[in-house]
Amino acid sequence: MQKWRATRRLLLNSYSSKSRFDHPRSNPISDHSTTISRSSSGFESWTSRIHYRHFATAMIQRNPSFSTLNSDDINHFKGILGDKNVIEDEDTLLFANTDWMRKYKGSSKLLLQPRTTQEVSEVLKYCNSRRLAVVPQGGNTGLVGGSVPVFDEVIINVGSMKQVISFDKVSGVLVCEAGCILENLVSFLDNQGFIMPLDLGAKGSCQIGGNVSTNAGGLRLVRYGSLHGTVLGIEAVLANGDVLDMLGTLRKDNTGYDLKHLFIGSEGSLGIVTKVSILTPPKLSSVNLAFLACKDYSSCQKLLFEAKRRLGEILSAFEFLDNESLNLALNHLEGVRNPLPPAMHNFYVLIETTGSDESYDKEKLEAFLLRSMEDGLISDGVIAQDINQASSFWRIREGVPEALMKAGAVYKYDLSLPVETMYNLVEEMRTILGNSAKVIGYGHLGDGNLHLNISTPQYDDAILAQIEPFVYEWTSKQRGSISAEHGLGLMKANKIFYSKSHETVQLMASIKKLMDPNGILNPYKVLPYSIVSYI
Amino acid sequence: MQKWRATRRLLLNSYSSKSRFDHPRSNPISDHSTTISRSSSGFESWTSRIHYRHFATAMIQRNPSFSTLNSDDINHFKGILGDKNVIEDEDTLLFANTDWMRKYKGSSKLLLQPRTTQEVSEVLKYCNSRRLAVVPQGGNTGLVGGSVPVFDEVIINVGSMKQVISFDKVSGVLVCEAGCILENLVSFLDNQGFIMPLDLGAKGSCQIGGNVSTNAGGLRLVRYGSLHGTVLGIEAVLANGDVLDMLGTLRKDNTGYDLKHLFIGSEGSLGIVTKVSILTPPKLSSVNLAFLACKDYSSCQKLLFEAKRRLGEILSAFEFLDNESLNLALNHLEGVRNPLPPAMHNFYVLIETTGSDESYDKEKLEAFLLRSMEDGLISDGVIAQDINQASSFWRIREGVPEALMKAGAVYKYDLSLPVETMYNLVEEMRTILGNSAKVIGYGHLGDGNLHLNISTPQYDDAILAQIEPFVYEWTSKQRGSISAEHGLGLMKANKIFYSKSHETVQLMASIKKLMDPNGILNPYKVLPYSIVSYI
Repeated sequence: MQKWRATRRLLLNSYSSKSRFDHPRSNPISDHSTTISRSSSGFESWTSRIHYRHFATAMIQRNPSFSTLNSDDINHFKGILGDKNVIEDEDTLLFANTDWMRKYKGSSKLLLQPRTTQEVSEVLKYCNSRRLAVVPQGGNTGLVGGSVPVFDEVIINVGSMKQVISFDKVSGVLVCEAGCILENLVSFLDNQGFIMPLDLGAKGSCQIGGNVSTNAGGLRLVRYGSLHGTVLGIEAVLANGDVLDMLGTLRKDNTGYDLKHLFIGSEGSLGIVTKVSILTPPKLSSVNLAFLACKDYSSCQKLLFEAKRRLGEILSAFEFLDNESLNLALNHLEGVRNPLPPAMHNFYVLIETTGSDESYDKEKLEAFLLRSMEDGLISDGVIAQDINQASSFWRIREGVPEALMKAGAVYKYDLSLPVETMYNLVEEMRTILGNSAKVIGYGHLGDGNLHLNISTPQYDDAILAQIEPFVYEWTSKQRGSISAEHGLGLMKANKIFYSKSHETVQLMASIKKLMDPNGILNPYKVLPYSIVSYI
Repeated sequence: MQKWRATRRLLLNSYSSKSRFDHPRSNPISDHSTTISRSSSGFESWTSRIHYRHFATAMIQRNPSFSTLNSDDINHFKGILGDKNVIEDEDTLLFANTDWMRKYKGSSKLLLQPRTTQEVSEVLKYCNSRRLAVVPQGGNTGLVGGSVPVFDEVIINVGSMKQVISFDKVSGVLVCEAGCILENLVSFLDNQGFIMPLDLGAKGSCQIGGNVSTNAGGLRLVRYGSLHGTVLGIEAVLANGDVLDMLGTLRKDNTGYDLKHLFIGSEGSLGIVTKVSILTPPKLSSVNLAFLACKDYSSCQKLLFEAKRRLGEILSAFEFLDNESLNLALNHLEGVRNPLPPAMHNFYVLIETTGSDESYDKEKLEAFLLRSMEDGLISDGVIAQDINQASSFWRIREGVPEALMKAGAVYKYDLSLPVETMYNLVEEMRTILGNSAKVIGYGHLGDGNLHLNISTPQYDDAILAQIEPFVYEWTSKQRGSISAEHGLGLMKANKIFYSKSHETVQLMASIKKLMDPNGILNPYKVLPYSIVSYI
């Protein structure tokens, strides 16, 4: 036990959500009354660094069956929404046309900001009748090009629909409009003594409607499960303007097909989510975090197994990174240091617990760690003493993507794989690439979610050819997912067959055709264009 | 604290699952090699007590577009399945034609027992081409007439598909065939140190494929959530014989629409589930149970609120019953006694905790109960000392349905309602019915699931007219569910609009038509016949 250098209680609740990096990009769309000043002041420096990769539009032709926007359309929209919610301003459109990674850029000439479900319905009904393609947009924080136009699709941003409709303190059920920013919901619930069951780095910008539409994963999935379990109801508008009121607030409801699940994770391609009902857990008062070293991947796995069993009900995060990931963070990030004394460990694990009893939870974690050391699963470790230490531990894990960007070019893969075989992929990739690249692995081990990253001095097609399709094929052979939590969007629409069978994709396409016969909703995304080019 | 009469630790783990009443009806279908002897020995006494209610078939005409079985069909099935898996035996068919409540009885002449997904596929492909209607059947333990034929539908029972395919101890993911009996899976997992995330009274007969197809709720939902959250993947066969392999084992997979949810709770009307992948929680070692009295419903609600917050991660059940329910159990069930000294309490609550630390969990529960007494939320209470006491507490709550049956006629409603207003329905019903009936309320308060039961000396249409449609309309006004966990089946197919909007039901019907254009899968169930009579 002498190796545990810090055993003082953490001072604050919920420090983890505060310590994670804030979303660095303000969103000028969410409140149009402040749009111009914010986008004007910050936009030049931002746009000057943009280097778009236009490969997507090079591979896909604009669907010629879609109409082109004209002045009658714009006047019609103004009639529905009022002049100020029909945006043609260039700066705002540049922002709304460009994705978070600055990798995709559309050329939409129109951004619509409905304030009610009825307005969304009228807009879609009109677009459908006119065959005007649309992109539903929330906080525009997606990573696969799903939230921006590919060509000239009309952008429908629901950020003006941001009311909390109701909150039931007995059941913990929150009902709100789709445009509520996640962080605002977190603040609202904090005052009520509850938390959101999901937490993302992008929470300062992302909206709950977008979270639901993309089935966002995030940091609390290991504890509270996916949105398919926590979302109790939604209201959605179909392509033809029909409003589906499925905004139940019940934990149990077996009256027919549970169609809300079609909208969770379909990336706005089946309808626009306008309201959400979600089960929120009570806020618990005690959070602890340990940073641990393991000698090999097998020990990480065994530690996960034991943590689930022995920490059981208080385990709230189980993250891992390999030594190469740690070194990248240490070498490229300012102020980051290894909390453990210098030694060669192959793997590092962060274990977070969240419970309702400060003294007990800490004792339980300490007893678990002591036992795990005695069993040889942990080589060394430290428990955060305070919020600053906890933040610095999280900074290592969460700083890896930033360190990778600073190190040069990076090929990024977000994969779900069986925990047992997950790290084999990293090792096989290393064997294939030899000294030509640095291969690192880290991620949400508790969820079976590996972030495989390959770092090279510069982008190199020869290296890419060694990585793909190998990574996808390997993942497919393991029955893994080529997109654990980011969705398919435009980036991976054509790669769906690596994770889904032909019959399943065909049924998806049939449902798309049934629900959006003109294909106006978020075209070119999610499903291979060849399969849905029925229009 | 002097009121806590029992503070000795519970002796056994998981006693609760053992103490609940076993399923009293053996199932002769699950293992045909022993079918005849079991059904022959037990069937006469069973059938002599049957009083079918034929109202369903009186309201619905057989769909004339369905073919009638002929000898060529039977020979074809024998070619696919082998002679012994094509059952025409009368006793076995009587059993398979009759539902668990002995309320519905079909007249099928054929029971098929496929052993593989391929066989299910070939059977369905043939039935679809011949327009032979089918009923998918698992353990046949449903309560809404969903698992038996209405007319002469061919019964497809997957009970022969009962292999565990894999179990991953690191992730806790179990993959198995649909015909696995829930209790067998519980036993299998127990040896591995895991539990199923669902537990039902019918676990001795019900099958996991049926559980998934009906989105079974059960006793652990308050802790582990619904099957939409815990089922990670399924394999299903569509009406045309296409096999959908969606048997993922991943917690995170955002590659296209998550179509497995269409099959969870659609009661076999969109396809036959043949394999299931499910996330199982580790078995925890400490279980405690308290039986408590509350002076009013408001106290029950507040107690639930506090229990979620203070017991948080170890709370595993929160059940309630009113004084009338308790009296019924005391008056009609042998050996049942009130564990509290005689006093007039209006409500009783059972709180169960399940955790990983025996001494701590007990202390935590006791501290919570002490505080709740000091706050006036609890009037009296007792903690079970051992498995026998725990069983006797559960017997009170779970014996209420049996007591109701012994008391006379009973009108039963399984409703999801907002916790805050739930009990108002019981009180309003009492006002309406006055002395003509005894109205009782009990159920899964933690899930917002009320079992409203109205007990009368005999069935009386005048009383029924006072209850319905009032109960459904009241539930509908509260945005409740008219079927919390039992599904719609044949019994409530026409009542779906009380809980679902017209647009939502229309979309369900469109999806049904898309996936089963000939309507052969479990006809007359789930959706109103008028809406799906497209054939």
